[in-house]
Amino acid sequence: MAEQVKVEIIAVGNELLLGDVLDTNTNWLCKRITGVGGQVTRAVMVRDEQEEIVAEIRSALERGSELIITTGGLGPTGDDITLQAVAEATGCPLKLHREALALVKTRYQELAKKRYVGDPALTEARKKMAYLPRGAKPVPNPVGSAPAVILEVGRSILVSLPGVPEELKGIYEDTLQPTLMTMFADSFYQERAIIAHSGDESTLAPILKEVVHAHPAVYIKSRARRFGPEVEILITLSSAGDGREEVEGKISSALEQLKTSLAEAEIEVDRAER
Amino acid sequence: MAEQVKVEIIAVGNELLLGDVLDTNTNWLCKRITGVGGQVTRAVMVRDEQEEIVAEIRSALERGSELIITTGGLGPTGDDITLQAVAEATGCPLKLHREALALVKTRYQELAKKRYVGDPALTEARKKMAYLPRGAKPVPNPVGSAPAVILEVGRSILVSLPGVPEELKGIYEDTLQPTLMTMFADSFYQERAIIAHSGDESTLAPILKEVVHAHPAVYIKSRARRFGPEVEILITLSSAGDGREEVEGKISSALEQLKTSLAEAEIEVDRAER
Repeated sequence: MAEQVKVEIIAVGNELLLGDVLDTNTNWLCKRITGVGGQVTRAVMVRDEQEEIVAEIRSALERGSELIITTGGLGPTGDDITLQAVAEATGCPLKLHREALALVKTRYQELAKKRYVGDPALTEARKKMAYLPRGAKPVPNPVGSAPAVILEVGRSILVSLPGVPEELKGIYEDTLQPTLMTMFADSFYQERAIIAHSGDESTLAPILKEVVHAHPAVYIKSRARRFGPEVEILITLSSAGDGREEVEGKISSALEQLKTSLAEAEIEVDRAER
Repeated sequence: MAEQVKVEIIAVGNELLLGDVLDTNTNWLCKRITGVGGQVTRAVMVRDEQEEIVAEIRSALERGSELIITTGGLGPTGDDITLQAVAEATGCPLKLHREALALVKTRYQELAKKRYVGDPALTEARKKMAYLPRGAKPVPNPVGSAPAVILEVGRSILVSLPGVPEELKGIYEDTLQPTLMTMFADSFYQERAIIAHSGDESTLAPILKEVVHAHPAVYIKSRARRFGPEVEILITLSSAGDGREEVEGKISSALEQLKTSLAEAEIEVDRAER
């Protein structure tokens, strides 16, 4: 069975940890990555502190995660320090990148034409966004001004995306998704879910335990969606492997046993619309 | 100057990393903790894998964070393993806790009275929620059935909250907030924000740089809120210290310089309503 490609996300920004901004980027990326067959194993939020970002990148590299995505901290101001941290963590110092500079330059010319900015001149602050870790490639930003950055580090790929959700989504859909599809091509992930109308989750526990025991390759998770007289418990069965048929077979077989046991215990079941 | 109390959050659950569920608990907790003077320095999401949860708890303890909050994984089913992980990470094995058992028992009796569950008997699955790490204290859950758990580990306090947002909020407001207020009593955090109507963030960069340099105790962060002809850049100034007056003084002085420089550069400024 092919292992799923392991992905980690590092969200950078004081505003996240102060609670000023709800991080929706991580959830959005998790959904997309799961959808194309990758597996996000861990996601972390850190402050705009270089040594803290460095520590997170290093430990993700040490865990051997194949794809490491950072979000935030690519902008022109002094508190945007993600690429400095990437440079320090990987030993690839920042260098002015010709192609990145051209992207930034073109972007500001477009913005000036639309009168979004006055002077399109490449000031130091704007040039800052074109300093990339040695060996990195810039990725055009269809919405904002800071290019995203891709850097190969040994067997891992490190991708730095801007934190503004529209920019992150634009770059992902335009450029990143096709790259990831290729990376993840060998693995297949599927999940199916049912809703059990059980008195409470504790009633289900012994039933789930038996199914888990009989189907070790299927991950089974239960989660109460309401509490009260109308309890709904969402039971998710998921598995991953080489091919669609194999994975579907494993899940179907576990699901069949689960439904039989729930029927025997007189627990009503619905299909989950999700 | 008193250091702010350092807080870390560990959110547990495959559903978070699959992207099925947007984690709003972390943001809610960050807001609350910032509001009472604590400082969330890091937040992580991990899967329902015991060794991964253990690793996160251990590294938070090693960093000396005074408060470590876990969310999720306290329920009756086999995939709820947070307390097992706490036990392993701290070397405090799980033991049936008399008071916790009484809480769970009372809860199921109430639920049976309301006809939310049929039989209130203490099954193995229900009893599981009363197995606490040695030395831990249970905290009543006003909404659900699993008590929260507080454990002192050296100079750190480890709090395990359920993942269902209503339960987490209920426990926080009823029991946790007063405890935290005492923990955080010595430190004071304040932030003020303004909105600059600048062409783009790169225009602000040199101005911010000067203010940052002149006011090292004030953290200054800028963030574009819109991109286009109506750009709004939110500039946040924050600081922490022993007393309200000292902290307010530091921020006011930096804010004054910032406003003067923005006026000189003919950049319009608004008060931020947040």
